[in-house]
Amino acid sequence: MKVSVSQQQLAHGLSVVSRAVSPRSTLPVLSNILVATDEGRLRLSATNLELGISCWIGAQISEEGAVTVPSRTFSDLINTLPNETVLLDLNEKTQTLNVRCASSNTDIKGIDAQEFPPMPVPDLSAGTELNVADFKEMIQQVVFAASTDEARPVLQGVNLTVSDHEISMAATDGFRISVRKARLSTPSERPVSAIIPARALSELARIASDTDEKVTMVVPPGRGQVLFHFDDIELVSQLIEGNFPDYKAIIPRSSKTSTIMATAAFQKACKQAEIIAREGNYVVRLNIQNGEEGPGSVEVSAQSEETGNSEVMVDANITGGGLVIAFNVRYLREVLDVIKSPSVALETNANNTPGVIKAVGSEDFTHVIMPMHLG
Amino acid sequence: MKVSVSQQQLAHGLSVVSRAVSPRSTLPVLSNILVATDEGRLRLSATNLELGISCWIGAQISEEGAVTVPSRTFSDLINTLPNETVLLDLNEKTQTLNVRCASSNTDIKGIDAQEFPPMPVPDLSAGTELNVADFKEMIQQVVFAASTDEARPVLQGVNLTVSDHEISMAATDGFRISVRKARLSTPSERPVSAIIPARALSELARIASDTDEKVTMVVPPGRGQVLFHFDDIELVSQLIEGNFPDYKAIIPRSSKTSTIMATAAFQKACKQAEIIAREGNYVVRLNIQNGEEGPGSVEVSAQSEETGNSEVMVDANITGGGLVIAFNVRYLREVLDVIKSPSVALETNANNTPGVIKAVGSEDFTHVIMPMHLG
Repeated sequence: MKVSVSQQQLAHGLSVVSRAVSPRSTLPVLSNILVATDEGRLRLSATNLELGISCWIGAQISEEGAVTVPSRTFSDLINTLPNETVLLDLNEKTQTLNVRCASSNTDIKGIDAQEFPPMPVPDLSAGTELNVADFKEMIQQVVFAASTDEARPVLQGVNLTVSDHEISMAATDGFRISVRKARLSTPSERPVSAIIPARALSELARIASDTDEKVTMVVPPGRGQVLFHFDDIELVSQLIEGNFPDYKAIIPRSSKTSTIMATAAFQKACKQAEIIAREGNYVVRLNIQNGEEGPGSVEVSAQSEETGNSEVMVDANITGGGLVIAFNVRYLREVLDVIKSPSVALETNANNTPGVIKAVGSEDFTHVIMPMHLG
Repeated sequence: MKVSVSQQQLAHGLSVVSRAVSPRSTLPVLSNILVATDEGRLRLSATNLELGISCWIGAQISEEGAVTVPSRTFSDLINTLPNETVLLDLNEKTQTLNVRCASSNTDIKGIDAQEFPPMPVPDLSAGTELNVADFKEMIQQVVFAASTDEARPVLQGVNLTVSDHEISMAATDGFRISVRKARLSTPSERPVSAIIPARALSELARIASDTDEKVTMVVPPGRGQVLFHFDDIELVSQLIEGNFPDYKAIIPRSSKTSTIMATAAFQKACKQAEIIAREGNYVVRLNIQNGEEGPGSVEVSAQSEETGNSEVMVDANITGGGLVIAFNVRYLREVLDVIKSPSVALETNANNTPGVIKAVGSEDFTHVIMPMHLG
C-alpha cells in the first residue's frame, strides 16, 4: 500500500471510527484500525465485534493494500502532524506502516489486515431512508431512558419499529419510558422491528455530521444486525435478541390533572432541588396547586435529614384538581434536557400512578415516569 | 446574620475559596465554608489546615453573624440561582442558613463558626510587594518541576528567596531543576527564604485575577507560614520545613555546544516523538548535527520495541560540536510549554552531563534536565 491523503481528512476519519475500537480486548487486532485502499478511496474501519464503524476518505493511491495499526498511536500521531499531505507506505514483509509528513517520519508496527473481522456489505436497495436531523433528535430523546444494567440486556436497547409511513423508538429502564415517533417522507418497503443497543445509537448521533441529510438503515433478514449508511460512513451494530417489554400498556391513556409549565423554569427548579435531593435518594415532591383565581403553581421541594430543605415555586397552568406527587429528580432533569419546546405538560392521575411528560405543541414525544413514595 | 449579596459576586467568591476545602477530612467543619460578616463586607473562608483562602465580597448587612455551611451544597446552590440579590439569613439556634433568591428558598444545615480554625491576621507593613503578572509567570515556570512524591516533602515545595532587589524561585524533583529570577520594583526590607508548597503557589496563580496589579507577601517570623494578600483575597499556606537541596551547584556553568531552535518547532517534534517514546520509558534521542555549511539540525527520535520508531527533523543554529544525547521527553515538553520566547537554547557538554534549557533573550530563566542513558 502506498497512498497520500490530507492530514485533516485522515484526522477526521480516525476520530469517527476510533470510538468503535476495543482498547482492552484479548484480541489485539481489535485495538487496531484497519487502513485499506478501497475503490479509489482509503477506508478506515474499527470494531469491537458489537459495533463497527467504517469511514472512507479521498486518497491518491499509487499501490493498493491494507494493514491494521494501533488506534491510539496512529490517531495521536496524525493529530500532531501539520495540515499537509500525509504519505502512508506499507512494508508488506514487516507489516510496518511508514507515515511521512513534513519533517516527521514514523514507522508503526501493524497487524496483518487478514486478521481483522470482515465488515458486512449491505444491500442498500432494501433499506429505509431517514432524515438525519430528525433521526438524531429522536435518538437523543430516547437513549437516556435505556438501562445501563448489564443483567437486563433487552433494556439496554432501543426498540425501533418502522411500518409504512411511521418510525418509532422506545427505551425504558423499568422506572421510566421514553417514546418518540416520526413520519417517514418515503414509506418503508418492509416493516422493521429491532432492539438496537442504545450505545450504538448514541455513536450514530455523534458521527452523523450536520452536512449529512439522509441516512439509509438496513436490517438484513436473519443476520441479527442493523446497518446505517451515510455517504462516507457506515455503522454496523449487532441487534439485541429478546422481547422488548410491552411498554404501550403502561402509558396512561387519560389524566385527571394537566400541568403546563415553562420548560426552562421547571428545569431550573429541578436543578436547584436536586442539590438537596441528591443527599436523600433524589426524591423531589411536586405540590401542584390549582390557583383559586388565575394560574396555579407547582412547589418543587426536597428534603434531606443531613443537609436541609429547599423549595422552588414554578408558575403553572393547571387543568383539573391539585395533587402532591414525588419523582426521582434526575429523571425529571434528564427528560427536560431533551425537550426543545418552550412549554412542557405534566399529566398525572394520582400520587401512586405514573406521570406523563409531553412537549407542548407536539404529539410525537411521550415520556412516562414512575412516581416515588411520598415520605 | 442577615445579609444580602449579589449572586454573581457570591458565586465568584465561592469559586475562589472552595479549592482550599478539604472534602474528605475527618473534621467535618473542614468540608464547610465559613460565611461571616466582617467590617461591612461578607467574608468567605476555607481551609484544609495546610492551605487557607479567604475572599471578601460587598454585602448589605442588617445583622452581624457567622456560620459554616457544606461547601459543595452551598456552591452548587448559588451557581444555579439567577443573577439577582441573594438573601442569607442565619437561624442562630438551629445553625441553619436560609438562602432566598427569586422563587427559590433553601435551608442549609451548618456547623457553628466557632469550630472553624482561626485564620491569621497579617501585618502587611512588613511585607514584600510583588507585581501579580510577573509573579504568576514565575510560578508557572517553576511549579511543574516540583516533585509529587509524598516521601520527599522538601521537593514538593518551591524554594523562594528575596534579597534586596531580587526574588528567585526554584523547584526540583531530582531529575530536573527550574529556576526563575525577577527584579523587584521596590526593594524588600528584610530577606526571605522559605519553602512554599507547590500546590499553594499553583492555587495562588489560579486565583490571582488579571485585574489585580500587586500582591503583598508576608512571612511572619517564627510562625512557619506565608501569607499572600490581594485587595479582596488572602491565601495562607504552611511552609515546608527542611533544607532545600543546593541546586546552584548542579547548574552547569559552561557548555561545549549551544543549540538554538524555534520553540514551537522543537515542542511539536517532542510531542510527535512522545507518541512512540511513551511506549518505551519516554526516552528521546537528540542527534545534534552541526551543518558543514550553513545551519545545522536536530533529529528528535524515539524507538519502541512494540510500536515502532519515529524521527523528526528540527532546524537549528549550532555553536560547538555535534552530540547525541537522550532526555525524558515529558520533561522537554513540560519546560517548552512554559517558555514564551520564540527561540530556545539547549546547552550541552556531554551525553552524560545535564543539559540546560534557556529562553533566548532572557537571563531570568534556567532549566536543567538530567540526561538518560543512550540505549
